[in-house]
Amino acid sequence: MTQQPSPTSPHERPEPEIAELTRLIREFVDEREWAPFQDPKSLALALVGEVGELAELLQWVPADGAVERFADPARRQRIGEELSDVLVYLLRLADVLGVDLGPAARDKLAGSHRRFVADEWRGRIPEKS
Amino acid sequence: MTQQPSPTSPHERPEPEIAELTRLIREFVDEREWAPFQDPKSLALALVGEVGELAELLQWVPADGAVERFADPARRQRIGEELSDVLVYLLRLADVLGVDLGPAARDKLAGSHRRFVADEWRGRIPEKS
Amino acid sequence: MTQQPSPTSPHERPEPEIAELTRLIREFVDEREWAPFQDPKSLALALVGEVGELAELLQWVPADGAVERFADPARRQRIGEELSDVLVYLLRLADVLGVDLGPAARDKLAGSHRRFVADEWRGRIPEKS
Amino acid sequence: MTQQPSPTSPHERPEPEIAELTRLIREFVDEREWAPFQDPKSLALALVGEVGELAELLQWVPADGAVERFADPARRQRIGEELSDVLVYLLRLADVLGVDLGPAARDKLAGSHRRFVADEWRGRIPEKS
Repeated sequence: MTQQPSPTSPHERPEPEIAELTRLIREFVDEREWAPFQDPKSLALALVGEVGELAELLQWVPADGAVERFADPARRQRIGEELSDVLVYLLRLADVLGVDLGPAARDKLAGSHRRFVADEWRGRIPEKS
Repeated sequence: MTQQPSPTSPHERPEPEIAELTRLIREFVDEREWAPFQDPKSLALALVGEVGELAELLQWVPADGAVERFADPARRQRIGEELSDVLVYLLRLADVLGVDLGPAARDKLAGSHRRFVADEWRGRIPEKS
Repeated sequence: MTQQPSPTSPHERPEPEIAELTRLIREFVDEREWAPFQDPKSLALALVGEVGELAELLQWVPADGAVERFADPARRQRIGEELSDVLVYLLRLADVLGVDLGPAARDKLAGSHRRFVADEWRGRIPEKS
Repeated sequence: MTQQPSPTSPHERPEPEIAELTRLIREFVDEREWAPFQDPKSLALALVGEVGELAELLQWVPADGAVERFADPARRQRIGEELSDVLVYLLRLADVLGVDLGPAARDKLAGSHRRFVADEWRGRIPEKS
């Protein structure tokens, strides 16, 4: 263990993927000294910018033809890039806010299981009003 | 290892976390028969709804006080839930579009390394204009 | 006309509606001393919050049934409130940034007329790719 | 009056600016036969796309330097175009949903006056939690 700096030594659990991606993003940012620009509000706006680019790819596509349209490899690649940009800013924002997003998402999903009992909600989706 | 309850056999690599979360979300949706509501445009709007809830937590916080504000455990918990909601819809949207988001995000990050050479971009962040 | 209580004298053009709404919002904000909170980034996040609430009303509605659904008076009233919230933050953000949004929107529309010549674009809408 | 098709004949009230802009946008869309693409969900995503472009202009600007930055005429022109794009899709969405946005915004503002009594809310802004 003494000379083992890896996050995946034989005696430790491997680094979870979300934590690993978060670390890679942090290293990318630190290497460029961009952290001073990336306060939470700035990152939230950057996230919105990427969500906007994602929305633009979908906006005029007929609702029932969207899955088929993005089955095309070049288009799937393109929308995968936009989805990735959203993920990157989301992970970065969570990191800056000190949130461990993997466990947080698991907890949230467990809460949804309790809140939306399958037998009560089968076939109807909760609507905001 | 013989009574391994995991979905991965001892001879396979463990399921990556993003794929696992995606699968758990898919099972949640399928159990409730919500898939017919969740075409890509509907999911994109749901994602926007969650990004909006995240934005509301940050909107009036002073930019340089946001990290400190969310260091409070109850507030960190709260914003972690909103970040998780965004992640859940993002993973679901990627799944419906056939995008494997873990590898896609890694590729995108590799592209950013090539595009933003550290020595050229140190201390300044690319601005949209 | 002699006892005209309007802010416009009989010899001036009446205040355009967008400028008037902008002024009413500014007075509302000033009366509560909220201006110090409302820097442009904070207002942009507030705008995103309202866009998110609008998206939530539309997210699970079938695409081809949305107009009919909101023909119901209570639902039209409800979505009208969300659209209004978006407008209010948009006008406020423009005001803080020194943009006169009525003329700006007219200019933008004139630009769109030049850019999307009707005979070339009839029946097809420009797609982002 | 007999040959006067104008919305501003001497005997009628002039067309309010928001209704006029809405009409101009509708004519622009109809001339290009784009209405079939512009169901409410598609327009909501287009609105999100424009909000994203607006966010990108603000994302890395220091919060307390944004007003000064956009005092520059070229930058003010640029952000005015993005604000206008948001307004255009907002007015179009309201139109498609049958909402008269001028009166709706006035009503909403009147509601905010009742809800946020100035003497109670002076100097503090309501926070989402």
